Amino acid sequence: MATLKDVAKETGLTVTTVSRVLNNRGYISEEARQKVYDAMKKLNYHPNEVARSLSRQTTNTIGVIVPHIKHPYFAELISNLENQAYKKGYKILLCNSQEKGEKEREYLDMCTSNRVAGIILCSGTVAVEEFNGSNIPLITLERYLENGTATVECDNRQGGRMAAEKLIASGCKRLLHISGVRETAMPADLRAVGFGEVCREREIPCKEVDTSSFEYEHLEYHDLIEKILRENQKVDGIFASSDLIAAQILQVCYSMGICVPEQVKLIGFDDVNIASLTTPPITTIHQPIREMAEMAVNLLAEAAEGKVVPKRSILPVALVERGTT
Amino acid sequence: MATLKDVAKETGLTVTTVSRVLNNRGYISEEARQKVYDAMKKLNYHPNEVARSLSRQTTNTIGVIVPHIKHPYFAELISNLENQAYKKGYKILLCNSQEKGEKEREYLDMCTSNRVAGIILCSGTVAVEEFNGSNIPLITLERYLENGTATVECDNRQGGRMAAEKLIASGCKRLLHISGVRETAMPADLRAVGFGEVCREREIPCKEVDTSSFEYEHLEYHDLIEKILRENQKVDGIFASSDLIAAQILQVCYSMGICVPEQVKLIGFDDVNIASLTTPPITTIHQPIREMAEMAVNLLAEAAEGKVVPKRSILPVALVERGTT
Repeated sequence: MATLKDVAKETGLTVTTVSRVLNNRGYISEEARQKVYDAMKKLNYHPNEVARSLSRQTTNTIGVIVPHIKHPYFAELISNLENQAYKKGYKILLCNSQEKGEKEREYLDMCTSNRVAGIILCSGTVAVEEFNGSNIPLITLERYLENGTATVECDNRQGGRMAAEKLIASGCKRLLHISGVRETAMPADLRAVGFGEVCREREIPCKEVDTSSFEYEHLEYHDLIEKILRENQKVDGIFASSDLIAAQILQVCYSMGICVPEQVKLIGFDDVNIASLTTPPITTIHQPIREMAEMAVNLLAEAAEGKVVPKRSILPVALVERGTT
Repeated sequence: MATLKDVAKETGLTVTTVSRVLNNRGYISEEARQKVYDAMKKLNYHPNEVARSLSRQTTNTIGVIVPHIKHPYFAELISNLENQAYKKGYKILLCNSQEKGEKEREYLDMCTSNRVAGIILCSGTVAVEEFNGSNIPLITLERYLENGTATVECDNRQGGRMAAEKLIASGCKRLLHISGVRETAMPADLRAVGFGEVCREREIPCKEVDTSSFEYEHLEYHDLIEKILRENQKVDGIFASSDLIAAQILQVCYSMGICVPEQVKLIGFDDVNIASLTTPPITTIHQPIREMAEMAVNLLAEAAEGKVVPKRSILPVALVERGTT
């Protein structure tokens, strides 16, 4: 592979001058600049980013650690993170922790060893307490953070409240909430809190059922949903903590001969593509995934420059009415 | 941040000995090894992977370039690539080209400058012809490759044949194929070829309609599908080139009062999660995404070691019967 020296030789300029062109530093004549670009192209020269990173003691890479890649929520989140990172001149190192503490720890170490500019963590909590990446900014997204730089969440509690209010306003008398995994404490748990609050305020009976990490890992809830529906036959309104769960509720209702929204009304959470791909499409709580991703990358960039950033940012949610209410 | 020298000082060993422990080279007593590990933990020392990469002149990073992240097919593909990369000791640098030639080119350059171990390209074709990353292995996945290392595809033509045979066996008399984007030549175009072949062999009338990159980019086909269905009212069997399109056909049929599978039978392609989340779930052609991802990473690893690898690998597909046929 061609080196800086080869480029200098080809142009007849000094290595220092070529280096100044590449780093856009100091005065360089337009003629010299063009000579360097032409030589780079001719020799197929690619500046060695590894060497540059070493001298800067950091890279322009963001480590993104998620518990799932193909879960539609994380697919959408990763897409938005990559997009904003690109705009800010960063690249994404993608890590799938599968919500396992040991993999999180391993990935946090790997990110540190690779001198990332910062880490966006959307997984677990255990590892964070042990994380000691010195001055590497650590931003968590929809996860709690004890000793990190900043956390970005949506207003989960308000989302739960909105879902309860909408179901009650639609005439539901017996509500059910199918929540996320309860093994790890997460901001998303506040969806159940907000939902329960409104039910108590309005004196509407409400039951909450947890899901397990097994279902979460396999994205598969059908058997559990069927069991829940058989045990709670008088329920006429369901709030699911994700659109993925809501889509499967819709399928189980169909196979059990329960009409949605006539007999049972249904609200999901996230507003990812699945919510608009079912028949009928799913009424849901919109989580501002794009804005959350942008904010996470921006906070990371500011923290990497040494700026003070807000420790916690909570973004608003919104009810999106579709065909299941 | 602690350095190798600090670790040496803490343990009382030489820098060379500590380095040998880290690189697992030469004879090291168990006692010395433990001393080094203890000191690393105490000092929170992380070996500088950037420096190691520089001396090796390569990294253990794979550049993955996709045209879309949140498209369910690519979400599933990326998930499988990350998983296999992890098993093989690689990390993933994720790049979203949005199927734009200039972004592809930029990302190929970025990967080269960052001295990746190899590139897995699932996007476009233009850039590949211009790619000159010297000895960096370039594996394409479901994309044609002129001057790269290897290409991995599924048997698209056979998938198209299977879809036609299934629809005809189910009694369909007038078939329609909604294909992918026709602006770029792709292996997926062979789905239409295989489908058309069987229709001609069996003398069943068949029409093919293309989609545009606009719909692909926005994952939004409803208006186009409604127009197609209004213009082809006698059609009783549809083969869609992705499950995403099939899910939207299902919705449009529902809103137009067309019963699936009673009046119109429907087959998708890919077998991603959406296909099993609709009501009824979608009969589809299973693309072996996991195996294709594993093969792409393995070919890359072998090519990086200088081994000779097959230029082209075609994996088998299978019909998965669900509720739309």
